[in-house]
Amino acid sequence: MPLEAMRYDITPVGLHYLLIHFDIPAIDAGDYALRVGGHVRRPLRLTLDQLTARPSTTLAVTLECAGNGRARLSPRPLSQPWLGEAVGTAEWTGTSLRAVLDEAGVETGAIDVVFTGADRGVQGGIDQFYERSLSLADAMRDEVLLVNAMNGRPLPPQHGFPLRLIVPGWYGMTHVKWLRSITVTERSFAGYQQAAAYHYRTTEGDSGVSVTRMLPRALMVPPGVPDFMSRVRFLKPATEVIEGRAWSGLAPIVKVEFSSDGGRSWSAAELEDAVSPYAWRRWTYRWDATRPGDYELCARATDAAGNAQPIAQRWNLEGVENNAVQRVPVVVREPAEQQAPADLG
Amino acid sequence: MPLEAMRYDITPVGLHYLLIHFDIPAIDAGDYALRVGGHVRRPLRLTLDQLTARPSTTLAVTLECAGNGRARLSPRPLSQPWLGEAVGTAEWTGTSLRAVLDEAGVETGAIDVVFTGADRGVQGGIDQFYERSLSLADAMRDEVLLVNAMNGRPLPPQHGFPLRLIVPGWYGMTHVKWLRSITVTERSFAGYQQAAAYHYRTTEGDSGVSVTRMLPRALMVPPGVPDFMSRVRFLKPATEVIEGRAWSGLAPIVKVEFSSDGGRSWSAAELEDAVSPYAWRRWTYRWDATRPGDYELCARATDAAGNAQPIAQRWNLEGVENNAVQRVPVVVREPAEQQAPADLG
Repeated sequence: MPLEAMRYDITPVGLHYLLIHFDIPAIDAGDYALRVGGHVRRPLRLTLDQLTARPSTTLAVTLECAGNGRARLSPRPLSQPWLGEAVGTAEWTGTSLRAVLDEAGVETGAIDVVFTGADRGVQGGIDQFYERSLSLADAMRDEVLLVNAMNGRPLPPQHGFPLRLIVPGWYGMTHVKWLRSITVTERSFAGYQQAAAYHYRTTEGDSGVSVTRMLPRALMVPPGVPDFMSRVRFLKPATEVIEGRAWSGLAPIVKVEFSSDGGRSWSAAELEDAVSPYAWRRWTYRWDATRPGDYELCARATDAAGNAQPIAQRWNLEGVENNAVQRVPVVVREPAEQQAPADLG
Repeated sequence: MPLEAMRYDITPVGLHYLLIHFDIPAIDAGDYALRVGGHVRRPLRLTLDQLTARPSTTLAVTLECAGNGRARLSPRPLSQPWLGEAVGTAEWTGTSLRAVLDEAGVETGAIDVVFTGADRGVQGGIDQFYERSLSLADAMRDEVLLVNAMNGRPLPPQHGFPLRLIVPGWYGMTHVKWLRSITVTERSFAGYQQAAAYHYRTTEGDSGVSVTRMLPRALMVPPGVPDFMSRVRFLKPATEVIEGRAWSGLAPIVKVEFSSDGGRSWSAAELEDAVSPYAWRRWTYRWDATRPGDYELCARATDAAGNAQPIAQRWNLEGVENNAVQRVPVVVREPAEQQAPADLG
C-alpha cells in the first residue's frame, strides 16, 4: 500500500496490501463448497449461495502482514522485504464462524479449528496447502467472520475469492484465503504454517513464541514531494499538517506522538475516532516546518493496554512483529530547479 | 501482476501492474476540470461531468511498463526491479482525444501535444509535474482515448482518477495519469520525462532512442506449485498444458514458440484470437513433462512485422525495453514430503 493511501478511511481495492503465500488458485464459484468437518456431530457442506444467504455482518478491519517492517531489520531476514506499507483497512462482509460451528455441533474435547486454503506450494521441504488454526475459544469469538465480500463487492481473486476467514485484530497470516475447509481437531494442530512458521525467535532451535495479534503501530503519510530514485521527501518551508493512521490488535489506540528530530523529543498528535473497533484511527499533527534543514520525522503509537512502539528494532529470525517507529527523512528547503508545467498553472 | 493472473482475458483491478512515478495525488472529482490549451483557437475547460457525457468507446488494451524485465539485466540498472510481471490488460472507457483537440481547434504549426499529470516530485534534480508528449500525428490517432473508467468502474485512485490518457500499443509511461491539462505546442516538448528519461541508451552521454511502442513479449503462467522462498516450481510427471499471453505494440502477434530446454529447441504454441486489436493473445502448449528432471521453460513471441524476442538480454542504462525470452526453471518429480490437509481431501 503506498503510504499516501492512508488518506482513505477504507483502503480502495488495489491499494490494500497483498501477500500471496503460494499462488492465487483458480476457483469456480459454481463448483465451490466449503466443507466443515472433523470433531463435529453434523459435518456440513455449504455452497457459496448457502453461505451468502446466511445472516451477515459488515466490519471495517485493519489487516497488517506479520512481516511488515522486515526490510528495516539488519541483517535483513530472507522473505518479503516490506518497509512499512503492508497494511490496509477494508469493509469485510460475511457470516459468523461461530454460528457455522454451532450448526455443525462441536464435540466435547475439541481443541483447535483448522482452516485449509486452496493455495498450495512447498515450504520447509514440505508440499502443503496453506493451513492455519485457531484455538476453539478464539474461533468462537463474536467478531470472527467467513467473508465473501470486500468493500461491498465479491472478493477479488487475490483477496481470497470466493471465501476467506477474517479474525479482527490478528496479523495477516491468520485470515486464510481461498478457504476450502474448516476442520475441528482433538489435538493441537501442528501443521507447518502453525508450528514452524510465524514464530518470534532470535536463534535457530529456539521454539519461539507464536505470532498472533498485531502490535501497535502508527504510520504517517510522508509529506511533501519525493525524489524519484531515493524517495527522500522535499517540503517548502511552511506549517505542515502531518496525517497518519494508528492501530493495535491488543487494545484500542489511546496515544500517538510525533517527533521531527528522530525521536529525541515527542509531542502528542490529535486523534480521531476509530473507523471501527477493529480498524485504524486517523491522527494529525500541525508541524512547524518553517525552518529549512534536514529532519527525521517519527510517529509512535500506544494502546490502552500500555503497549508502545519501540524506538529500536527487535531483530528476529523471520523478521516478524517489527513495529519499531517509522522514520521519514525530509528536507525542508525552497524548491530546486523547477520545470514549469506546460500549462503554466 | 502475479503471473497466474494471465489466466484472465481482462486483468482484475488490484492484479493489474502499477507504477506510481511520484505519489498518488488527492483529487476531488467535484472540483476537477481538464484544461486544453496552448496553440489552439478555443481553449477548453472540461469538467468530469462534461467529459463523461461525451461519446465514449470501451477498448481492451494491454499496458506494459517500459522497465518490465529490468531486474533480469546484469548489472541491474537502478530503478523498479521488475522481473516480467509489469503488465496487465484492462477495459478502458473514455472519449476520443482527437475529438477534444478538434473542438479546441489546433492551430497550424502545432508540433507536440503535452499531457501534464497532477503527480509531482523531484527527478534528475528537477522539481516537476509528471509530463509526457506525443507528436500531433500520434495524438490524433483514432484509438487514443481520455479515459475515466477501468473494467466498467470509475478509475481507481492508483490508475489515474479521475482521468488518464490511454495510447494503445505504447509502453506505460505514455498513458499519463491524473491528467490536469493538455497543451498543444509549437516546439518539440523537451521536459525531463520526454527528453531525458525513457531512452534506450548504452553509454552516458549517448542521446539514445526514445522509448515508444511495446516490443513483442510472450509470458507463461508458471506451471506446478512454487517453493515459498526460491519460487522454483515443482510438477508431478504428467502432460501439462502450459498457457500464457503474448502481445506487441508494433504489429499483431503471429507466432509463439515454446521451449523446455532453455531455448535450444522450439515448438509452435497454439494461438487464440486476441482480446482486442490492442490486447494480448492467449496461447497454449501441451508439454510432455512425463520424465523427471530439471527443465528451463521459455516462450518467444514474433509479430507480423517480423519482430521476435531476443534470446539474450540487451543491456542499457535505464533498463528499458528488455524483452528477452522469459525463463522459468521447473523441477519435474514426485512430490516431496507432504502435509496431508486437515480435511484429508
